[in-house]
Amino acid sequence: MGCVQSFRELCDRPKNTNVRISLPAVCIVWETAMIILFGIFIRYDDDSDSHWIDDRKETNKSDIENEFYFRYPSFQDVHVMIFVGFGFLMTFLKRYSFGAVGFNFLIAAFGLQWALLMQGWFGSLGPDGKIKIGVESLINADFCVASCLIAYGAVLGKVSAVQLMVMTLFGITLFAVEEHIIIHIIHAKDAGGSMVIHTFGAYYGLFISWMLYRPNLNQSSRLQCSVYHSDVFAMIGTLFLWMFWPSFNSAIADHGDGQHRAAINTYLALASTVLTTVAMSSLFQKHGKLDMVHIQNSTLAGGVAVGTAAEFMLMPYGSLIVGFCCGIISTLGYIYLTPFMEKYLKIQDTCGIHNLHAMPGVIGGIVGAITAAAATESVYGVEGLKETFDFVGDMSPTKQGGYQAAALCVAICFGVGGGILVGCVLKLPIWGDPADDSCFDDEHYWELPQDEESTQPVLQYNNHMRNKDVIETNFNMQQT
Amino acid sequence: MGCVQSFRELCDRPKNTNVRISLPAVCIVWETAMIILFGIFIRYDDDSDSHWIDDRKETNKSDIENEFYFRYPSFQDVHVMIFVGFGFLMTFLKRYSFGAVGFNFLIAAFGLQWALLMQGWFGSLGPDGKIKIGVESLINADFCVASCLIAYGAVLGKVSAVQLMVMTLFGITLFAVEEHIIIHIIHAKDAGGSMVIHTFGAYYGLFISWMLYRPNLNQSSRLQCSVYHSDVFAMIGTLFLWMFWPSFNSAIADHGDGQHRAAINTYLALASTVLTTVAMSSLFQKHGKLDMVHIQNSTLAGGVAVGTAAEFMLMPYGSLIVGFCCGIISTLGYIYLTPFMEKYLKIQDTCGIHNLHAMPGVIGGIVGAITAAAATESVYGVEGLKETFDFVGDMSPTKQGGYQAAALCVAICFGVGGGILVGCVLKLPIWGDPADDSCFDDEHYWELPQDEESTQPVLQYNNHMRNKDVIETNFNMQQT
Amino acid sequence: MGCVQSFRELCDRPKNTNVRISLPAVCIVWETAMIILFGIFIRYDDDSDSHWIDDRKETNKSDIENEFYFRYPSFQDVHVMIFVGFGFLMTFLKRYSFGAVGFNFLIAAFGLQWALLMQGWFGSLGPDGKIKIGVESLINADFCVASCLIAYGAVLGKVSAVQLMVMTLFGITLFAVEEHIIIHIIHAKDAGGSMVIHTFGAYYGLFISWMLYRPNLNQSSRLQCSVYHSDVFAMIGTLFLWMFWPSFNSAIADHGDGQHRAAINTYLALASTVLTTVAMSSLFQKHGKLDMVHIQNSTLAGGVAVGTAAEFMLMPYGSLIVGFCCGIISTLGYIYLTPFMEKYLKIQDTCGIHNLHAMPGVIGGIVGAITAAAATESVYGVEGLKETFDFVGDMSPTKQGGYQAAALCVAICFGVGGGILVGCVLKLPIWGDPADDSCFDDEHYWELPQDEESTQPVLQYNNHMRNKDVIETNFNMQQT
Repeated sequence: MGCVQSFRELCDRPKNTNVRISLPAVCIVWETAMIILFGIFIRYDDDSDSHWIDDRKETNKSDIENEFYFRYPSFQDVHVMIFVGFGFLMTFLKRYSFGAVGFNFLIAAFGLQWALLMQGWFGSLGPDGKIKIGVESLINADFCVASCLIAYGAVLGKVSAVQLMVMTLFGITLFAVEEHIIIHIIHAKDAGGSMVIHTFGAYYGLFISWMLYRPNLNQSSRLQCSVYHSDVFAMIGTLFLWMFWPSFNSAIADHGDGQHRAAINTYLALASTVLTTVAMSSLFQKHGKLDMVHIQNSTLAGGVAVGTAAEFMLMPYGSLIVGFCCGIISTLGYIYLTPFMEKYLKIQDTCGIHNLHAMPGVIGGIVGAITAAAATESVYGVEGLKETFDFVGDMSPTKQGGYQAAALCVAICFGVGGGILVGCVLKLPIWGDPADDSCFDDEHYWELPQDEESTQPVLQYNNHMRNKDVIETNFNMQQT
Repeated sequence: MGCVQSFRELCDRPKNTNVRISLPAVCIVWETAMIILFGIFIRYDDDSDSHWIDDRKETNKSDIENEFYFRYPSFQDVHVMIFVGFGFLMTFLKRYSFGAVGFNFLIAAFGLQWALLMQGWFGSLGPDGKIKIGVESLINADFCVASCLIAYGAVLGKVSAVQLMVMTLFGITLFAVEEHIIIHIIHAKDAGGSMVIHTFGAYYGLFISWMLYRPNLNQSSRLQCSVYHSDVFAMIGTLFLWMFWPSFNSAIADHGDGQHRAAINTYLALASTVLTTVAMSSLFQKHGKLDMVHIQNSTLAGGVAVGTAAEFMLMPYGSLIVGFCCGIISTLGYIYLTPFMEKYLKIQDTCGIHNLHAMPGVIGGIVGAITAAAATESVYGVEGLKETFDFVGDMSPTKQGGYQAAALCVAICFGVGGGILVGCVLKLPIWGDPADDSCFDDEHYWELPQDEESTQPVLQYNNHMRNKDVIETNFNMQQT
Repeated sequence: MGCVQSFRELCDRPKNTNVRISLPAVCIVWETAMIILFGIFIRYDDDSDSHWIDDRKETNKSDIENEFYFRYPSFQDVHVMIFVGFGFLMTFLKRYSFGAVGFNFLIAAFGLQWALLMQGWFGSLGPDGKIKIGVESLINADFCVASCLIAYGAVLGKVSAVQLMVMTLFGITLFAVEEHIIIHIIHAKDAGGSMVIHTFGAYYGLFISWMLYRPNLNQSSRLQCSVYHSDVFAMIGTLFLWMFWPSFNSAIADHGDGQHRAAINTYLALASTVLTTVAMSSLFQKHGKLDMVHIQNSTLAGGVAVGTAAEFMLMPYGSLIVGFCCGIISTLGYIYLTPFMEKYLKIQDTCGIHNLHAMPGVIGGIVGAITAAAATESVYGVEGLKETFDFVGDMSPTKQGGYQAAALCVAICFGVGGGILVGCVLKLPIWGDPADDSCFDDEHYWELPQDEESTQPVLQYNNHMRNKDVIETNFNMQQT
């Protein structure tokens, strides 16, 4: 008990946001570790090695059949989603735009290196003990990072950069294990990562936030809102996520019709979501006014929910239905569920990732399971069915559906368990997180420029004078 | 007469901007209709169906020859133009950025679904009564939507979201008919849509704006201007349109040299336009200062005007000449024509789409007709001439030139006629549009965050105190 | 001596920023010259000419093997870097965002036309005296422009648009000669342009800035800083540069494994740079706070430094090491070197291009030379070695290394010499540059909108009243 007591005391020390030692140390040491591990383990794969020319001549391939040309445009779109999409989506807070876009940048840049290693060790370690990387590895690394950026959304403004680095280190590790189980052991399909990325990432973040619950967060409530221009910045994030989501869901789908179909399904689901989001947002506000929070977030729910089934024969109308439902559920989540969770479940979810990633991710897993279980040879074709689901042995669609459902459970368990575990670690008072009354404030981690006011230095000078004079005036008034 | 009278009275009722019933109703009902119609009509095409594997084996094709790899990168660029390009281009107004980017998002998301249906019914309805969609359909749907977004530019800030939805519904319908006539009946070529998209869309919007003329719009003039940062936001739109226009004009051009040539021509025309726009903007302002309105808009005119002829052998210098002229004409349009049209023709054109889309679109149609008429086998090659113009039977370049000119007339007629018709419908006082003194204001349709001022709550508090004290002071002063 | 005296007097005339004659004249005359020269010299290349169909049938090629499909996605990414990347990176100044993004737009649009001509004359003039352009020419033109935009970074806010046009005209000319010497005479390899683009461009800009030294620039220091939102705008530029840099370095690399490898190496180098930049930024600031200037700029240094060696077998860990070092060096450059250069070397470098382009560019050249010299057949394969370095005759890796080093010297010489030369020209007092106390101010070249304040017209009115009253109050107070 004394031990618990002293741990609690340790946790209750006054907060110190100075990370001048810890942040550089973490960055330099971990990056050095990356270099050493990359030196030992990571090499170019066949399509990016200069020996490819021999390979190409042997198999009588054309240059254009290099994997690069199948995946690179999708990779770049995904890359934009990770850095501009997620980064700018979180700039909506009035004084946390630097932290949103800057820390997102930092943890994504670290995470993708660690992901290449972790995913390599689990997925593609060759007989020579080397991990061979190519463009598909880069996409997978970006995907892996996405789950940690989703988790960042829950704790936005309440943690330090060092905490985020720790969260990313563990998050990527857990992701790689979870992905390995789901994809390589259970043999579930999840091209767009509804389960692997979104469900896992969201629960991971939510349970970290639960562990880091701040009862006095309302002391920062003056900063937990947006201003006009920060909402426009956030729309940059929203739109780049929305536009490139078809690339996200199709990036690692099968060559040819697989990628093609995944892009179409995602395109349609997202379009449908926008309409129901607008409808719900207008319907549940006084005077029918739209709420930017919904437009920025819930419009993306369809993309999340169609992730698993995107490369299946979901049918265009199926995609629309998925999007239709998710727009409604996600918007209602923002209106009713987020306040409820904060008040009763002690989960403070800054960006509402429960509504944008957790619920749509779970829906996506279920849709995937149903679509897989309902697959028939008449719809897919004999060859097509095998190709789409990579059936080996005596697999059948029904079985595949069961495996998909099992995969969803794995993703949730890893998210919840991992979140609680990592939340414990992050509760230690050594990470430089801000006090309850200074959350959502760039002030503590960034050299801020002077305020906009000072664009007119002369006016400002007058202002100062005026203030002084007014105060004097008041003083005189009170005296007389 | 009494009927007209009572209609007029109906139209003169005080405005009510509450769309809490109408907007959700329109969104939900129309989206439900989409799902039903998609269920009945829309299926995957050969290249996105899981049967493609059989097809591929039969024709001994490589995976990379799936249509997806020919068009997808261009599609994504077009997608960015539609959502970020058009959306942000219109954020220049100081208090209408939410409406610009948000309503653009809404109507584009609805429009592309309706466009897939309309274009399918007219263009690609198979013998089984199904519309087969693939990546080219998605591009065409985005193109179709572009015409409605152009029209939105004319009425920006003066209509409600419900009106925009109605405008889009009719706009897409008219577009599909017009496109069918121009492309499939007249057999005109219009890869970049100078006529089909820009000319039609612009006149459609202008004549709607003419029908919705607001004599007292100057009551909102305090909001019909930009602020520093909103102009920078608009440049995001401008640049993404400008950069990706080569993809727009080449997206549905012929495989290989057709797409290649269209991209080069557009790239050059746009580069040339920038220089003449800057020249005119500087020349016609006091002290040679540049006007952001011109830089944001007229720099794009070359892309519009080279649309039809982009895949022809226009020659690099030809593209430069087209861009050169359009930069001048478009900028002069902003300086002289827009005020003239507002004053004498009663056409209030918020974004100046007449200068950016209508005039350059018509020029593009004419350039296309001349280039087609002047085509020779020595320039194109025997096979190349057939390929480029898809000549069948006894078609000749001269005839093709005539057909191109006819197509331009069709586009203008549909735009003008459609605009007047739809304008009548939108004049009904049931759509929730704002009163003349509350145009260009997000206030009526969006939950707005508190103003920037409140970033410094303490200062603000002082401000309040100060105001009160100052007023008291004044009061005392006046008494003594 | 009298001549020098009178030249100095000429240079000391009071500044006049009115460019109403000079700017339009330069734009119109030069664009006209472009049209004439394009008419004489420039034609489509084989892959973009309508005769390609014959060519394709002869060689039994597929449509997808048109050069367009190898390069176009990379081209579009590079295009975004040039216009949005460089443009927005420079918007960080509080009152120079219009100039940053607008003048960047102007000179890039002019520069790419002139680059097509210059690079064509030196590189691809056919036997018929025509320059054949295709998608690779467009990429090369964008690359060429990049060097001038880098140079713009050094003089940002201190020159007029006319000066920038002159600077670009000469810069492109020098670039084409320098590139011809390095690539075609010395036969050095430089896919990502560490030497050709970055080293040359940076020294060109720095020595122009040295020639244009302004001893009284501190009179504008109130404007030589950022505000909160301008820093967020600059992050748009940073991120698009960062994300698309793999496309930049791979855009003109060899088909297949060359492009593939260049993208991977750049991706890794950039990721590594972010971590060391954050570490240094935090370590060298009071309280460990991060500085936006470093995050905006130094995070890109790894992309510059890996440019030359990107298509070599640098190995993934090699890329990480390059990025690691550059993040440190570049950030330290911002902290120590930029103030030193301004104070002692009289080089005023607004954007710190010495830290972002010059030093990393030189490092890139050295890394390239070492990597080339260390190339072996066991690593590259017999065929691979020839392919990667385009060896002809008796070339050996060691020799190639020497040639690479020679190329670096050529780039530095051209930069320094060209900068001094062009700086002399730009010193003439006829170009409309601003006085020392009005640098970094859009006011002189742009029609500016009213300030943000006026978003609330009523409040503003009160403000005015208040001011007046307060002043009266003060006056009365002093009287009594």
